[in-house]
Order: sequence, then structure tokens, then C-alpha cells
Amino acid sequence: MAAPKEISSTKQFGGFNKRYEHESSTIGVPMKFTVYFPPAAEKGKVPVLYWLSGLTCTDENVIQKSGVQRDAAEKGVAIVACDTSPRGLNVEGEADSWDFGVGAGFYLNATEDKWKAWRMYDYVVKELPELLRTHFPQLDTSNASIFGHSMGGHGALTIFLKNRDKYKTVSAFAPICHPSNCPWGVKAFTGYLGSDKSKWEEYDATVLAQKFSGNKDFHILIDQGSQDNFLHQKQLLPEEFAEACKSNGIGVKLRMQDGYDHSYYTIATFMPDHITHHVKALTSS
Amino acid sequence: MAAPKEISSTKQFGGFNKRYEHESSTIGVPMKFTVYFPPAAEKGKVPVLYWLSGLTCTDENVIQKSGVQRDAAEKGVAIVACDTSPRGLNVEGEADSWDFGVGAGFYLNATEDKWKAWRMYDYVVKELPELLRTHFPQLDTSNASIFGHSMGGHGALTIFLKNRDKYKTVSAFAPICHPSNCPWGVKAFTGYLGSDKSKWEEYDATVLAQKFSGNKDFHILIDQGSQDNFLHQKQLLPEEFAEACKSNGIGVKLRMQDGYDHSYYTIATFMPDHITHHVKALTSS
Repeated sequence: MAAPKEISSTKQFGGFNKRYEHESSTIGVPMKFTVYFPPAAEKGKVPVLYWLSGLTCTDENVIQKSGVQRDAAEKGVAIVACDTSPRGLNVEGEADSWDFGVGAGFYLNATEDKWKAWRMYDYVVKELPELLRTHFPQLDTSNASIFGHSMGGHGALTIFLKNRDKYKTVSAFAPICHPSNCPWGVKAFTGYLGSDKSKWEEYDATVLAQKFSGNKDFHILIDQGSQDNFLHQKQLLPEEFAEACKSNGIGVKLRMQDGYDHSYYTIATFMPDHITHHVKALTSS
Repeated sequence: MAAPKEISSTKQFGGFNKRYEHESSTIGVPMKFTVYFPPAAEKGKVPVLYWLSGLTCTDENVIQKSGVQRDAAEKGVAIVACDTSPRGLNVEGEADSWDFGVGAGFYLNATEDKWKAWRMYDYVVKELPELLRTHFPQLDTSNASIFGHSMGGHGALTIFLKNRDKYKTVSAFAPICHPSNCPWGVKAFTGYLGSDKSKWEEYDATVLAQKFSGNKDFHILIDQGSQDNFLHQKQLLPEEFAEACKSNGIGVKLRMQDGYDHSYYTIATFMPDHITHHVKALTSS
């Protein structure tokens, strides 16, 4: 597993945003990711908090717009942000729509032959942590948690529920909560997984919450803006996820935030609460 | 003075980023600006802190990338960010270089005929405050201060020193401090003001500090990254400004920040200190 190449480094709040590129064996093309190393990473190991971005984003959006570094620096946690899909494969039609293909990997392993390189699930769950473990001794990858926004909120919730041993807790901003039941999800799952809906269930947070049978000593934090157009368009369906959690004894706090939309302005506003949520779980072990 | 038209509104930290467009009588074309209204603006008048952006920027950069809203919300101060030049005039060559013309107004009133619409000084000092005073009763425009970045730091320092009655204090991130003596400034001043260097002095912060004879009950805060390429290229010259201030009894704190560059990551890092600096002056009156 070759070392990732550092392509930029900028100091912020005493730590560093470092962007890397590496040859991904999972995806088959070079992938980029960014790590924010808090000042504490210069003195010892720090916990790792994975961020998964939404449709059309790269690793850069959360680094530039969320203000996450301020709290990550203060609390001594590293932020790891990856890309949202393979790029540069030139699969026919990959960039025809903003909600499928490039920038829209949906954090799953595609089974349809045409999209077989779209394996962001394995990339996030397996390759990226292994890469960090191998090359960044200052990151305590055994003490990790995960969060994300919109499509990345879907990714965080599903990956957490399927890998209870790998992440201490989870949170999300405006996540896609029931993709089998919303236009974005139906389009993506049909394209990547085919029309057999039984295969969709393993990537649907609401179904996973209904069926979850693991250790339930965690709780899930979700912030959702009341003025989010995608909420009104029934792309997100957070109540269906919350109901599934409650009926299965999973602790979830769904906060409807009055007047907030789907943007990074909302993410920035509630980021301090999310960092507090994660740090509590990462430091109580 | 017609009311500006609201073109977007997003909630953040309990307040609102509102972007406006208006017909500018000073510039002669529509101009855009953004106000961040803190939550306190819903209950009464709040002080106004003007932000001036650097080369190539618009009003949006500081709103999207600096995290300023977090502290502005907490302290109850409004942030007003305007554009950096006229746009849409189609003056021949206006977009040929990134450091002159569009996005590079240098906060002066041009005297060369070709650039006569470039009157960002009057726009910032006169038209914009009057517009705010007329149409936004929640803004206490009589209690204002000013700050900025790079070219906008130059703007903030010069405008403050020339209008001691209008602003309570000033601060800057990586300001262009002695434009008559750096490549950016020489190019801009020659283009906008002509080759008579005596006309340059009224827009040169170092010269203005040398000649300043007003009330000196203020102090200036400047943060400068030690890894800023433009510092190394001698575009900024902060020591020359600090020396001029000290020799004239003006209080200045120039903080050289180890390892920081010219970017918004640096601005975000020290923004809390700058808001504290301004709020102290805005609330002591």
C-alpha cells in the first residue's frame, strides 16, 4: 500500500489541512482526500472522525466551508474527508446528471457491470482506514466515528449501522434517510444495484435501523433544516428513519432546525454540537 | 435612493446572510453586497463592521469561508461585505489581468478617464453607508468599524486613516501596506491614478500613517502569516507600515503568525480575535 502523495498543506487553528492523492486499489484510479490534523496530533495519537460529503461535492467543501477545524483543533480530533465517487474513468454518461455517476457514489459497492468501479463503500470502510493506519501513526484509527451531509449522511448512517465495531458513534446533517423510497435513491440504486429491490436494503438506513440487532449503546444525532427544499421534496425522509430507530430501541435525536436550509451555512451552525457529540463517544472508551 | 433588492437569504448561527443588488449611483452599474444580520438585529440596533475583500474576490468569499458569522452572532455585530470593483461595464481590457480592473478596484477613486467608473472609495465610504442608513433601521451605521484582507486590508487601513470620524477602529489580515512601493500597487495606482506619484499618497497606508494628525485613541491589529508568498514577494510590506505608525505615535500590533499563508484558512483562524478587537471599540463608546 503505497504512501499517499501530499498535494497541499495549509495551517489553520494551529493544525494543518493536508490534501493527498493515492492510487486506490478499490476504485482503480487515483483518489484524493484531505485530513485536518489538529495541533494535538503533533504530540500523540488523536481520534479520527470521517466526514462523508453530499452530491456534487469533493473532499474540499467541508474543509473550506464548514468551519469544522475550529472545534476539531480545540477538542483534538482529526477530520478525514474523502471524495464522493471515482473520477476520470470516463464511463459513458458518468457526468450526464449531478445526482448519478461522478460526484454521486452513494457510498455503496455497485453490482451493475457498467458501474463496477463505483465501490465507495469498500473505499470508505476498508481501504481508506487501512491507508491511514499504515501511513499516519498520529491517527488512532481504532478510535473512530463517522458523520456526513445529505448523500454523505446516508453514507454515514448506513456504514455505521453495518459496522458497529468500527465506529463509536454517528451523526448527520440533512441525511437521505430512506433512499429506497425517494427519487434520488431510486435512481441511484437502480443504476448501481439493478432493479432487484432486495439488494437495496443493505444500503438503506431506515431498513438497516429496522433490522439492526447489534449493540445499542450509542445514540444518533441528526440536524435537519425546516426550510430545506429537499426535505419538502421528500428526498430525505428523516421521520421514517427516526420512527424505525425508535421502534427498534435505537437512540436517535432528530432536531428540526427552524428556518435552516440544505447548505453549508446550516452545517457550520450546528458543527460545534456534532463535534461535541463525537468527542464524547471517542473519549469515553 | 432606491431600496436594494434581496437576492438570497440563508440562516446561520441564528442570524441571516442576506445578499442584495442595487443600482449604484457612484459606480453607474448594479452592485451586489451581503449583510450578515446577527440574531440581536431582530431585537434592536446593532453595530456595523465593514469587510473589504482582496483581489479577485466578491462579497461572497468572506461569507462562505471565514466563519465570521459564529463570532458576529455571539457578539451581536453585523458584517457588511461588498464587491471589489465594478462589474459589467465592459471597459476594454478590464478582465485581462487578475490584479487590475474587474475584481481589483483597490478602494480608490480613479482619476484616469478610462477607469473613471472605478470609484470604490466613494462607494464604500459614502454610498454604501448611506444606503444602509436609509433602508436598514436595525443597523446602527453611526457605530461602525472596518477590516479587510490583502487589497481589502489596504482599503480598510486607508479608509480608516482618512475618515477617523466614521470608524471606531480597524484591523487587517495580510494587508497591502505600502502600495506605492510594491508591484501590485504601482500597477494599480499607475493605471487608476496616472503616473504623478504625489496623487498616490492619499491611498497609501504607510504615507497616511506618517502624515496622520487626527485623534490617536485607537490601535490597529494586523495578522500576517509568515508563510505568505505575497509577503515574501514584497507585495505587503507590513513592517514599513508598522514603522510609520510607531514613529507617529499610532498604536499598532503587527502579529507575525508562524506557518500561516495568505488564504482564508488564516483568516478563519484569527477571525475570533479580530471580532473581539472590533467589538471592544464598538461597545466602549
